Amino acid sequence: MADVKLLGLWYSPFSHRVEWALKIKGVQYEFIEQDLQNKSPLLLESNPVHKKIPVLIHNGKPICESSVIVEYIDETFEGPFILPKDPYDRAIARFWHKFFDDKMGAVVNTFLHKGEEQEKGKEEVCEMLKILDNELKDKKFFVADKFGYADMAANFVGYWLGVFQEASGVELVRSENFPNFCAWRDVYVNCSQVKEYLPPRNDLLAFIQASASKA
Amino acid sequence: MADVKLLGLWYSPFSHRVEWALKIKGVQYEFIEQDLQNKSPLLLESNPVHKKIPVLIHNGKPICESSVIVEYIDETFEGPFILPKDPYDRAIARFWHKFFDDKMGAVVNTFLHKGEEQEKGKEEVCEMLKILDNELKDKKFFVADKFGYADMAANFVGYWLGVFQEASGVELVRSENFPNFCAWRDVYVNCSQVKEYLPPRNDLLAFIQASASKA
Repeated sequence: MADVKLLGLWYSPFSHRVEWALKIKGVQYEFIEQDLQNKSPLLLESNPVHKKIPVLIHNGKPICESSVIVEYIDETFEGPFILPKDPYDRAIARFWHKFFDDKMGAVVNTFLHKGEEQEKGKEEVCEMLKILDNELKDKKFFVADKFGYADMAANFVGYWLGVFQEASGVELVRSENFPNFCAWRDVYVNCSQVKEYLPPRNDLLAFIQASASKA
Repeated sequence: MADVKLLGLWYSPFSHRVEWALKIKGVQYEFIEQDLQNKSPLLLESNPVHKKIPVLIHNGKPICESSVIVEYIDETFEGPFILPKDPYDRAIARFWHKFFDDKMGAVVNTFLHKGEEQEKGKEEVCEMLKILDNELKDKKFFVADKFGYADMAANFVGYWLGVFQEASGVELVRSENFPNFCAWRDVYVNCSQVKEYLPPRNDLLAFIQASASKA
């Protein structure tokens, strides 16, 4: 049997993308929760460049960056395909995955920082929501009507963003402003892939509230 | 014959990654130089999300983001493979490609901006060079001893960085500080894939100097 370890954090959307991929493929794995205040020697030696989670260790070989890990899992293990088969659809899925990766910083700035960084973050998040609202007219999933690579990366706007919003009191997403995005999100949080694989909302909310009160 | 158009800029390292991929595959294409001060309707409708180059238009369908376009070209056209075949090697190639994409902002801040942004950029570029210097001990290419996906993304540190440095007078790369990186770069700029495909250094230098004097 393959030896698969995942170094991650239970509350990280990036970790959850990888867990999703492993679960979809039916791969057995050991989840090793990390402590970012006291990084483990295994994390430091497995990801010496970024020293960040998630890291997948497959038969002793580390792979870093959630976008890269999910593609690796898709190419390496049997089971349902995560990326579409058609090269053009694959490109669209990768485009949106990268879009979400690139916007993560703005979300963090908006909900976890203050002052100028927060204001710049808010602007960028609103711009992102406008783009998504336009894209998600009559769309349930990002590519080819099937849950996959882009939807996995959408987890932090589909799920985490609402929790961040509730924890921080900063309210950017209102259905009157972004009706298509909100309609998509309501379907997203209730679809089986999301309900089955993501951490319970209450646990996430309590954790983010507790972290914010310590900051 | 496939109808392939590339919306790009002759001086952009991102455009050149795509041109490289098309040339390696032997694909005939029409290069349509863009004007960023006056964006063309074709660019705006082909990349409504980012409104940026490069955009590949293949049989009327647009693909955006150089990292995504190069994978699309590799999966769509016949010819030598750009990404390695082995899934682990592919993951490493994607990891480095993403690394370079993520560092581009710091390079731009260092050489094209001033003040606090420049200082933060310099720190990040030096950190990047340290990582690369460590990675490139005894390495000619990033993955599996073969020029490919990661090396294409390395074009802006292997080629553009030196030109930026000369044009701006900001000198960060010295062989006494980063000997492995400099040894790699000297091989890089002289390897046939680079010499054949990248724009003449003097043209690039004159262009960047002229742009800086207008800023």
